[in-house]
Amino acid sequence: MKAYYKFTAMAAAALMIAASCQKQETPAATGANSTEAVIENIMTRTSIRQFTSEPIGADTLETILKAGMAAPTAVNKQPWAFVAVTERAVLDSLDAAHPMARLSTATAAIVVCGDLNLAIEGPGQEYWIQDCSAASENILLAAHAYGLGAVWCGVYPTEERVANVKAALGLPENIIPLNIITMGHPAQNPEPKDKWVPSKVHYQRW
Amino acid sequence: MKAYYKFTAMAAAALMIAASCQKQETPAATGANSTEAVIENIMTRTSIRQFTSEPIGADTLETILKAGMAAPTAVNKQPWAFVAVTERAVLDSLDAAHPMARLSTATAAIVVCGDLNLAIEGPGQEYWIQDCSAASENILLAAHAYGLGAVWCGVYPTEERVANVKAALGLPENIIPLNIITMGHPAQNPEPKDKWVPSKVHYQRW
Repeated sequence: MKAYYKFTAMAAAALMIAASCQKQETPAATGANSTEAVIENIMTRTSIRQFTSEPIGADTLETILKAGMAAPTAVNKQPWAFVAVTERAVLDSLDAAHPMARLSTATAAIVVCGDLNLAIEGPGQEYWIQDCSAASENILLAAHAYGLGAVWCGVYPTEERVANVKAALGLPENIIPLNIITMGHPAQNPEPKDKWVPSKVHYQRW
Repeated sequence: MKAYYKFTAMAAAALMIAASCQKQETPAATGANSTEAVIENIMTRTSIRQFTSEPIGADTLETILKAGMAAPTAVNKQPWAFVAVTERAVLDSLDAAHPMARLSTATAAIVVCGDLNLAIEGPGQEYWIQDCSAASENILLAAHAYGLGAVWCGVYPTEERVANVKAALGLPENIIPLNIITMGHPAQNPEPKDKWVPSKVHYQRW
């Protein structure tokens, strides 16, 4: 019986190797499970707007900020700054600055900002918007990976919101708030939206 | 002996539960390894500009496009369209349209576009840039998860690049190319940039 089990174990291992060879793409370092985990995390992320009172750990918040700063930027300018808010009074002042930001139950917020002093000079300056948006998506995905909920509340280019958020946080002239990412431990569990529309993909040319 | 094994198995399970309770954040559904895989994938992604001749599988390309369309969008407008290019002649025409896109060895490209007909009307129209940037970051992260290399080559708002890419792909008036995401199996293995600058994080207020 022992020999039989050994044989089936070897056969199973051989099948697994054979199956992995059929995959055209070699998954990243930590293997196929890692590939699936990343894709699943992207596909299951959805906006969360209701939170429990449990705070977010400082280490977790820092890792999420590091994930934000790992985003690519045009000409590697990294033209950004981040305001991480966990104090109730400041969250309330942001809530007043942007009533759609749903901060009443949030335990944290990250305000992703462009730093125009670090941005490309001339007509390429606007690339900061794309750079900070990529950082924002990283923040949402990292938060979701920790089981946290988050929602991207747009600030720029809505002029009134920009002025209000700048005032609430004391941002200098060159610092433009792109959004408020509202965060916390989720108190709701909505289904992720299925946004796959095959007709929005054009192959080769339009 | 059987009872002993049962006991140790139960003890191990209890220890695992206890260990998981110490974590302040509950990792997403598939567990702590999944959290680490997502964070690692974000932190190790870097721009790849040299590729082997091995093509990208059609299924993989479609999953990467699905990941793009899973990004959040302002007021859920999903104001985007994607051109997926794998034919050499079209890649060459894109290379001519944007010489910095490094398409000479690429086996695929995804051109992420804003669809102004689907965008918010009025002053909020520009949110399409942020929506398409979030989709682009998802595409880069999904590609990296499959062990593929990619690089985000900015098109919009550089007017000449926008006109050239529109002409190369036959894009209608309302479709604005944000970027060309150049892709393929990597033929280089550069170290990811360490972009963590703690002084760019401000706590509570500026």
